[in-house]
Amino acid sequence: MEYTEKLKTFPLLSSISGSDLEDFAKLLKPSDFSAGTDIITEGDTGSDMYFLIDGDVDIIKTTVFGDKFVCASLKSDMHCVFGEMALIDSDKRSATVRAKSDCTCVSISRKDFDAYADSHPAAGVSLLRFIGVNLVRNIRKENENLNLVYQALIEEIESN
Amino acid sequence: MEYTEKLKTFPLLSSISGSDLEDFAKLLKPSDFSAGTDIITEGDTGSDMYFLIDGDVDIIKTTVFGDKFVCASLKSDMHCVFGEMALIDSDKRSATVRAKSDCTCVSISRKDFDAYADSHPAAGVSLLRFIGVNLVRNIRKENENLNLVYQALIEEIESN
Repeated sequence: MEYTEKLKTFPLLSSISGSDLEDFAKLLKPSDFSAGTDIITEGDTGSDMYFLIDGDVDIIKTTVFGDKFVCASLKSDMHCVFGEMALIDSDKRSATVRAKSDCTCVSISRKDFDAYADSHPAAGVSLLRFIGVNLVRNIRKENENLNLVYQALIEEIESN
Repeated sequence: MEYTEKLKTFPLLSSISGSDLEDFAKLLKPSDFSAGTDIITEGDTGSDMYFLIDGDVDIIKTTVFGDKFVCASLKSDMHCVFGEMALIDSDKRSATVRAKSDCTCVSISRKDFDAYADSHPAAGVSLLRFIGVNLVRNIRKENENLNLVYQALIEEIESN
């Protein structure tokens, strides 16, 4: 498969090799996005996780007042994935992912991921563990942010 | 195993049966906690996930100002687990879990869980998927809380 070599550089797939990796690569769909395009749109329902193969993206969230802010930027040389929550549940996208430059991604759908994990359970365990680590990191980051904003709120109340 | 029948009532284990469930049950360690005892202490390093077999617990967090608040309460008839983040990473406990009544729990360590998932990968996929769903639910809840506190902060700033 044409992406197999590039995929080996992604930590998510570092413990998968041989035919397991080839079978995984067969499920991936390539997509090109022009700079400025939304790859994922906050609030949409989506079922795909993306590997950022080439280019840069911004992760953009919307406040309760409708203001948009960039909460993270990713580059292809970081060998990272985004949209992985969609492999776990079918709720709405929690952020927009916008191409900062022209981008190439490959994606896997939840349906294909589930079938792969069931037919290649040892690889499935490895993938789900790694996704779990990403999710736990997100929880800890959200918790830190919550503490910071709560602290600012209390200080604002006390200063008036 | 003495806990196998009770374990069948836990949604986490609903898709595991037969010898897979029996092998899982063999890894569990029972513990009794008196009312008022901390089963998990926020900030400690821990590696165990707990099944609440009997009794009620409070999940207690500490604000940046050191104030403690109950963010959830669990009862054994909810058939739920707690501390599952410790099976994924080795960071500090994000909350205290305190026995509200006398409690019986059974727990599994990350080391035993990892070995089980590697030797029973189909069951491992099922367990990690379920834990992933719990983690995603926590991310969405933290995100809602962050939005609420951010909204309160902006309203407080604008009212002064």
